[in-house]
Amino acid sequence: MPIQLLHIYTTMSLFQKHEALLKDALNALIVRTYYSPYPENPKAYPEDADALAKNWISATMNNNYTALDQTDSNGWLGEEVSPFLQVGIGVRYPSFTHETILKHASLAQTAWANTSVNQRTGILIEALDRIKARFFDIAYATMHTTGQAYMMSFQASGPHANDRALEAIAMGYKELTSVPEKAEWIKSFGKFDLKMNKTWKPVPKGISLVIGCSTFPVWNTVPGLFAALITGNASIVKPHPKAILAIAIVIEEMQKVLAENGLPKQVVQLAVDTLNTPITKNLAENPLVKMIDFTGSSEFGNYIESLTKTTFTEKAGVNSIILDSVTDLKAVLGNIAFSASLYSGQMCTAPQNIFVSKDGVQTAEGLVTYEEVVKGIAAAITSLVDNPKAGPGTIGAIQAEATYKRILDAKNLGGNLVLDSKAIVNEEFKDARIATPVVIEVDKSQGAVYNRESFGPVLFVIKTAGLKDSVALAENLVKEKGALTCGAYTTNEEAKTLIATTMNNVFVPVSFNFTGAGFINSHAAFSDFHLTGGNPAGNASFANSEFVSKRFVWVGNREM
Amino acid sequence: MPIQLLHIYTTMSLFQKHEALLKDALNALIVRTYYSPYPENPKAYPEDADALAKNWISATMNNNYTALDQTDSNGWLGEEVSPFLQVGIGVRYPSFTHETILKHASLAQTAWANTSVNQRTGILIEALDRIKARFFDIAYATMHTTGQAYMMSFQASGPHANDRALEAIAMGYKELTSVPEKAEWIKSFGKFDLKMNKTWKPVPKGISLVIGCSTFPVWNTVPGLFAALITGNASIVKPHPKAILAIAIVIEEMQKVLAENGLPKQVVQLAVDTLNTPITKNLAENPLVKMIDFTGSSEFGNYIESLTKTTFTEKAGVNSIILDSVTDLKAVLGNIAFSASLYSGQMCTAPQNIFVSKDGVQTAEGLVTYEEVVKGIAAAITSLVDNPKAGPGTIGAIQAEATYKRILDAKNLGGNLVLDSKAIVNEEFKDARIATPVVIEVDKSQGAVYNRESFGPVLFVIKTAGLKDSVALAENLVKEKGALTCGAYTTNEEAKTLIATTMNNVFVPVSFNFTGAGFINSHAAFSDFHLTGGNPAGNASFANSEFVSKRFVWVGNREM
Repeated sequence: MPIQLLHIYTTMSLFQKHEALLKDALNALIVRTYYSPYPENPKAYPEDADALAKNWISATMNNNYTALDQTDSNGWLGEEVSPFLQVGIGVRYPSFTHETILKHASLAQTAWANTSVNQRTGILIEALDRIKARFFDIAYATMHTTGQAYMMSFQASGPHANDRALEAIAMGYKELTSVPEKAEWIKSFGKFDLKMNKTWKPVPKGISLVIGCSTFPVWNTVPGLFAALITGNASIVKPHPKAILAIAIVIEEMQKVLAENGLPKQVVQLAVDTLNTPITKNLAENPLVKMIDFTGSSEFGNYIESLTKTTFTEKAGVNSIILDSVTDLKAVLGNIAFSASLYSGQMCTAPQNIFVSKDGVQTAEGLVTYEEVVKGIAAAITSLVDNPKAGPGTIGAIQAEATYKRILDAKNLGGNLVLDSKAIVNEEFKDARIATPVVIEVDKSQGAVYNRESFGPVLFVIKTAGLKDSVALAENLVKEKGALTCGAYTTNEEAKTLIATTMNNVFVPVSFNFTGAGFINSHAAFSDFHLTGGNPAGNASFANSEFVSKRFVWVGNREM
Repeated sequence: MPIQLLHIYTTMSLFQKHEALLKDALNALIVRTYYSPYPENPKAYPEDADALAKNWISATMNNNYTALDQTDSNGWLGEEVSPFLQVGIGVRYPSFTHETILKHASLAQTAWANTSVNQRTGILIEALDRIKARFFDIAYATMHTTGQAYMMSFQASGPHANDRALEAIAMGYKELTSVPEKAEWIKSFGKFDLKMNKTWKPVPKGISLVIGCSTFPVWNTVPGLFAALITGNASIVKPHPKAILAIAIVIEEMQKVLAENGLPKQVVQLAVDTLNTPITKNLAENPLVKMIDFTGSSEFGNYIESLTKTTFTEKAGVNSIILDSVTDLKAVLGNIAFSASLYSGQMCTAPQNIFVSKDGVQTAEGLVTYEEVVKGIAAAITSLVDNPKAGPGTIGAIQAEATYKRILDAKNLGGNLVLDSKAIVNEEFKDARIATPVVIEVDKSQGAVYNRESFGPVLFVIKTAGLKDSVALAENLVKEKGALTCGAYTTNEEAKTLIATTMNNVFVPVSFNFTGAGFINSHAAFSDFHLTGGNPAGNASFANSEFVSKRFVWVGNREM
């Protein structure tokens, strides 16, 4: 069989291979009930997978990462540090000048743009299968760069990230096939017909740059990466210099599938840099780069948005909890404590500000005073973090030294220290950088303290005049600083309507009365939008139709 | 029946009344074959409609336009001039401070945002029915402000504009219903299920401003206006001070339907100003205004795009024709002549630059030299404009004095004058401002002459080294200045592929081998995208999914 035909046969069959999954994913987007083709329970995978991954991470540390494309590379670099070990992991990646990266991307762009939507779909879903086979490697890579505990590292960077990637592929496929490839257009003028043959195609905008963050190097990167790719744009992934390894595995697997299908590996490139010699702006400002996905600080995100390009940003936000009335206060405070402690509050969806009326909280067992509620929050956190079976696995480690310092300094911000941060012992990683949540009580007038993001496990309890006051304060905070989520507890229908209407109108979703296994931190692919794109926390949303449609242009030709 | 119930009953029935039409429109968006529910032939309407409209325009001129909402108005103003009569039409509209307009819009926004998608759909399609009953009034209003001849005034501001408005409604309905209102989300953890009740709603971004142009005051205004409205945003229409009357009729009818349905008329407001006391920037820069639709100059369009808002722009562009090889040269040149002469080249889709190889054009009857082609273009134009039955009705009148001066000055730009502009007689309007197309021959090296928009009937014939040269010149022009369309004539498949690929990759649609009744100027709703949004001629596209999805934000709540 000639090579060309073999190539076509192979890629066609990838689409056919994954067509049933694609249909399920497309249906999931419409019904938005629970859907995930990638099991989140490690036990659903081969028994030896974890052991093999442990061997892999040992062999990978202190070595050059040679599995990635190295064409025209100019050396090796890497400066990641494990928050669990507090030593460098010693992995070095091929480095390139930004000119080389852009040259490769331009060549790859031409080849990738000429693939069909079906080809791209098949290749990208196949890549997710290959990534799935590396979930355990990715888990250890995530742990030793972000400080996420094992289970979160596995789930967030593995199945949950794959879910989000598949969601982007499906949304892309939906949009890319929403206009027909051709139509015969006939307009009758009575005496004669005017006939035109029309064709339409979605033309990719061009090279994509995806800028990753240090805490969720895979989960926050793959939505933009796969959205850019499904719409025909070659992509450059520029991870945070302190969190490369996990996404390097993802790119390694993608490059393999591309090469197997006769396409340039450079359709997806890893662009690494260091804190002292950054290349992000060189890439971002280059006219060849047409779209940028960014997760990180508001300052850098605002800079990205100011570039005259198509941008998708997730920036800082301050998430609120409005505590009005509850059935079971203990269950509620336990839930809040877990949400605030999970990965030491280093989630973009972690709560920071808890608004409580000075008059306290109504419960099924009567009114609980404000003071008791504050104490209860502190007690719930202490109970969680002091439990050796739950604490270390929930809080993980602190990714960055700056975050660690912020936590220790929080008590000096001006509020009333309710619960100080402390170190707890992680039996497996005695050297881990650990800090439990700090709880600070402030009056509503102390906006300077709580009206800004204190990234990490810092909780403010804000004493308000009542429900309306709580809602107004949370609303204004969103207008100023943005938010990804809002938790609310109320047993009153009027209060519920007030909270929902007010927060939704400033484009923040509300999670009501979460207890048990439901946490405001979790946004499920194919159901929950992650970010709304409507408030200062970011201009994008995983994954609404815009998240893909902004990446290509419909162009139609007509012929008589 | 209580008033509230009556209200619900009435609006429900509007959706039901128009549901079949909506379904047809939704289907048309998918198949993109010919579709228009509003006949473009004036003869399809009541026999006395034209006579009644003539009476109406006579009665309307030199009077205050009292049919619009006047709450809190501070006077009357209007300075429109008929290009056919070259006298002021004397219509004065209620004027408001921009503060008043924004105050009204804010109140209306709350009411309109609270209507359901179905209510809005019913009300807006009903409004199109009412507008349809005013098509002849709108035609005369368009004639005496834009200088469009009668037939174009009728078709472009009447049925074709309604088609585009309906297209925006349908695309809006499609996007707004692409996510379910609710879902029960159940995640199994084996031992137990995690259940959440989820709801989603499309939250409108807020007040819309639609800035009209002087040449297509309805056709270019209603897509953005109806897109903003269907997505729940109250709208302020700020027409060009010289082209208000036609859109005033549209808004009058919309306000009537709104009031009948218990909604504030100010959901759609007309904001008039004068050239000397403009209010556009006051409105555009106000933080209450969240989205802006703009048609007009590149300079002002770039300013609009620079505002940190959601913007949809149509700016200047330079449209090219690439003349390679043809079957019937006479038919081709006649088609080009008509496209360039229609409304005196004052269409955003009119051709300006004709690229011809120095080696001439292959035809079924052999090679025609470059010189003969140039002469043929001039002859075709002369033949059209000198035909008293065709000329005046094709070219109409020149809308603006500045355009008129530009035409007369074109011969001094540096090229070789092939055909000068002249006045022809319009028997009905002896005082009309008329200028036939001017044809100027330039060498490809004279980019300074032809590489910019010469708005109006100015045609440049550019002598190139051959097809590849023609395509490269047209491509670079698009990159620099943008374009809405490109006409191409070739009988060669390779040439066709080269032209299509090259122009499509700079996001310009190509119309191949148009003769007879097909003209590159026409973009049909429900089939042709108007603008691609991918080149400097504008950032929007009538009507892709983004044209509506950027106007609202999906927000989802969860409850346990």
